[in-house]
Amino acid sequence: MPQSVISRLTRYLAHVQTLCAQDIKWISSQDIADNLGLTSSTVRQDLSYLDFSGVSKRGYETGGLEKVLSAILGADVQWKMVVVGAGNLGKALALHEEFSRRGFNIVGIFDADPKKIGKKVGDLAIMGQREIPMVIAENKVDIGVIAVPSSSAQSVADMLIMSGIKGLLNLALTHIVAPKHIPVVDSRVVASLLELSHTLKFGR
Amino acid sequence: MPQSVISRLTRYLAHVQTLCAQDIKWISSQDIADNLGLTSSTVRQDLSYLDFSGVSKRGYETGGLEKVLSAILGADVQWKMVVVGAGNLGKALALHEEFSRRGFNIVGIFDADPKKIGKKVGDLAIMGQREIPMVIAENKVDIGVIAVPSSSAQSVADMLIMSGIKGLLNLALTHIVAPKHIPVVDSRVVASLLELSHTLKFGR
Repeated sequence: MPQSVISRLTRYLAHVQTLCAQDIKWISSQDIADNLGLTSSTVRQDLSYLDFSGVSKRGYETGGLEKVLSAILGADVQWKMVVVGAGNLGKALALHEEFSRRGFNIVGIFDADPKKIGKKVGDLAIMGQREIPMVIAENKVDIGVIAVPSSSAQSVADMLIMSGIKGLLNLALTHIVAPKHIPVVDSRVVASLLELSHTLKFGR
Repeated sequence: MPQSVISRLTRYLAHVQTLCAQDIKWISSQDIADNLGLTSSTVRQDLSYLDFSGVSKRGYETGGLEKVLSAILGADVQWKMVVVGAGNLGKALALHEEFSRRGFNIVGIFDADPKKIGKKVGDLAIMGQREIPMVIAENKVDIGVIAVPSSSAQSVADMLIMSGIKGLLNLALTHIVAPKHIPVVDSRVVASLLELSHTLKFGR
C-alpha cells in the first residue's frame, strides 16, 4: 500500500473514531471527503484497499470501518515504546495519554544528563542511557522515540538499533540513517511550521 | 510548487544548516540524496525550483544554498505565534528553543482551565482563552498553534480564525475545517506512530 494511502487512512481512523464516540452509525465517502478536504473518489479508492464494503445509499458502517482501519494500521496491537530524551518534548510525549489509549505503551524514558536520572515523569523514573540495551531486551520493546537534540540523534538511533528495536519515531529535526529493515518515521513540528511559513509567504 | 517538494525542501534546509554549522562548504546532490534516502535526480529536480545553481564538479555552495532555502521557506521572516493549550504538549512547544531560533516567536499561551491562568511557561504567563482576540489583534499574530484536546480543537480554531490569525498548526488528532485562505498544517505524532505500526505489522 502506498505511504500516501497509509497516511490518509490514519486520518480516516481519527475521523471515524470521533463519529463512533458521537454515536453516528453511517458515513458516506462524500462525508469523509468533505470533512478531510479530499475528493470522494480518493476516499473510495483508499477504502478499496480494505476488506470492507459500503452499503448502497447508507455508506460505511462506522463501527465496522473503525475495526478494519485499526487492524490495517496496527492500532489493534499493543506496542512497547521507549522515549530517549527527557527534555520538554520527551516528557510531553511520555505523559501524552493518547499514546497508551491507542496501544502505544511507554516502558522507559532515558536521558544523558545525570542530574535528571531518578526524577519522575508520570509513573516512570528517568534512567541513564546506558540502561537502554537492557530495558529493550528485557521488555522486548518495539518502538524507540528519539526526542534528543539533533546533534545526538544519530548516535541514539544507533544505540537503539543495536539494542534490537524494531522501528523508530524521530522527533529530532535531523535525518536519521538506519538499515532497510528498521522503519524510521519523522514527525517534525518545525518542518510543519516551515511548510506553513512558505504558504503564508507565497500563498498556495 | 507541489507540497511534496516543499516538504523535502524543509529537510534539505535542516541538512544544509547542519553542514554549515560543521563548516562544510560544498555539497553534491548525490550527498544530499544519500543522506536523506532520496535519489539524486529527485534532489536535482527539487533544487531546480530555486534560483540557485550548482558548480560543476563541486556541487552546491552550502552557505548560499541555506540562504535561498530559508528565503523560499519563509524561514528568513520573523513570525508571531500563539499557543492554545497549556498541557504537556503546548508547554513543550512554548519552551522549544528551535522555534525562536528559526524566527517563530511565541507571544502568548492560553488555556481554558482557570487554575492554569497566571502560571508561567518560560517567560510567558498563561492567559485565559477569552484574551485570544485581543492578543492576536494587538500583536498582529500570524500563526496559531492548536494544542488542545480533539474535542475542542475546532472551536479553538474558529476563535483563532475570527480573531484574524493567518495560518494554523494543528497538533490535535482531529481534522480542522478552515476557510480556503487560512492554511492549516497538521503535525500529528500519533498518526506518525500509526504509520510506523502499520509498517511493523505488515512490512513495507
